[in-house]
Amino acid sequence: MSKPRICIIGTGLIGGSLALALKQANYCAEIIGAGRTEATLKKAVELGVIDRYHVTMEKAVAEADIVVVAVPLGSMHAVFRDIVAGLKDSAIVTDAGSAKQSVIMDAAKSLAGHFEQFVPGHPIAGTERSGVSAAFKELYQKRRVILTPTEKTSPQAVEQITAMWQAAGAEVECMSAEHHDLVLAGTSHLPHLLAFGLVDCLNNLEDVGEVFRFAAGGFRDFTRIASSDPVMWRDICLSNKEAVMAMMRRYRDEMDSMYHSLEAGDGEALKEIFERAKKVRDDFCG
Amino acid sequence: MSKPRICIIGTGLIGGSLALALKQANYCAEIIGAGRTEATLKKAVELGVIDRYHVTMEKAVAEADIVVVAVPLGSMHAVFRDIVAGLKDSAIVTDAGSAKQSVIMDAAKSLAGHFEQFVPGHPIAGTERSGVSAAFKELYQKRRVILTPTEKTSPQAVEQITAMWQAAGAEVECMSAEHHDLVLAGTSHLPHLLAFGLVDCLNNLEDVGEVFRFAAGGFRDFTRIASSDPVMWRDICLSNKEAVMAMMRRYRDEMDSMYHSLEAGDGEALKEIFERAKKVRDDFCG
Repeated sequence: MSKPRICIIGTGLIGGSLALALKQANYCAEIIGAGRTEATLKKAVELGVIDRYHVTMEKAVAEADIVVVAVPLGSMHAVFRDIVAGLKDSAIVTDAGSAKQSVIMDAAKSLAGHFEQFVPGHPIAGTERSGVSAAFKELYQKRRVILTPTEKTSPQAVEQITAMWQAAGAEVECMSAEHHDLVLAGTSHLPHLLAFGLVDCLNNLEDVGEVFRFAAGGFRDFTRIASSDPVMWRDICLSNKEAVMAMMRRYRDEMDSMYHSLEAGDGEALKEIFERAKKVRDDFCG
Repeated sequence: MSKPRICIIGTGLIGGSLALALKQANYCAEIIGAGRTEATLKKAVELGVIDRYHVTMEKAVAEADIVVVAVPLGSMHAVFRDIVAGLKDSAIVTDAGSAKQSVIMDAAKSLAGHFEQFVPGHPIAGTERSGVSAAFKELYQKRRVILTPTEKTSPQAVEQITAMWQAAGAEVECMSAEHHDLVLAGTSHLPHLLAFGLVDCLNNLEDVGEVFRFAAGGFRDFTRIASSDPVMWRDICLSNKEAVMAMMRRYRDEMDSMYHSLEAGDGEALKEIFERAKKVRDDFCG
């Protein structure tokens, strides 16, 4: 097969870094950008992230073999609706959203007859920075990308999106969207909520005063993710609501149990939890 | 006043780093070490952390002008009991424990007539490493040390301990032990419990499988403190039980409220919390 022409909708950190990685790998014939803000697209051309752009989504995708939708979860539905009439019959569409069941529902509704050519995807990568100027070609090196094809998804489309992410340096795995959403609710969405909640909770301690002045390095690490983009995280929570709520309930049970151990002065029970957690964390995170 | 002779009980990261910093500042006449394990003390001499040692606490403190007790919270009581008969009348005793009300109770009980010469202290510093070989003389540079004198504490003793920590490079502040314990419960003890709890909770998701394989950088940062020493953290929780429980209850209220917003699909309420938290975190941690 000849080199594909790729259209990237949303040239921020995620879409822009993919473009740079694919160019570096000499994977594609051309990269066309699309997005809401022309200034961003101009900058993306200047930075060599994309070759050209269209502000009209339908036109941007017209010649594309692969369309990557890298926009916030709350905008997926509108983008699918805007591109569907412009897609070539053979075009494959994929996305980079942090929740998968909601994107699949959006795609089933808005991509209509093109739904079998849609490969839901999620690169587990990112930094605290955002925007096209934060994009860099190494972002996906040795990072995982999870694809969550449905029963209807074309296996050939999955193969091609797998090849694309591998060209960008990533390791690709497939799983069900439901499993993805539960795993990510635990390892990413819940931790973000806990960090936002901790900072807000301490900030509400008006009687305690300037509590953050006495925070040490551990606190800084623990709350780093509370500096993440509020709108993006609102969208993620709402899009993955059921799984996030399930994780929040499990976590509350865990902390309630810890509270009761502490209340009872049961140091042995606390030490057991801490030892288990330390071992797991040391094993997995090194 | 001539240079003080200092006895440091517990020559780990905290005690050892203080010894190195005070030597660097040429603050003291001599540093005598004491502790439970002779091998550690020998190593501390070899590394130039202390000048000499005694394995018998009572003898170790006999010539000291300042005694620094840098042992785990669960051992404070026993150390105070072991040193009290050996102290010079003029000797000042201080500690480096992470909770202050419990240490003050231990000292009031065991230091008896010497209690007025006891200055409760807590350097807000540390690393994930521990032990004498992890000690380094820069640990306290520009870090905060909180002193929590009681109504009975001699102002001259507070002055001398302030001068000692300043010589080690730290900024010293005084506050009540109650206030200290509440602030630290929020900025340090609660975050540690939340991190231990998150890792343990995810590890218990047997139905979810290898959940940690899909954790990204944010998770790594968030859970770093779950690699901390389980025994030390058991002691801290038990020693600061009331304040930690109060913080856990406040945090549960915060998370319950977030849960209800999510359940109601109230994206605006979630975004408001996230925005508030991001602003506070960016302002304080930069």
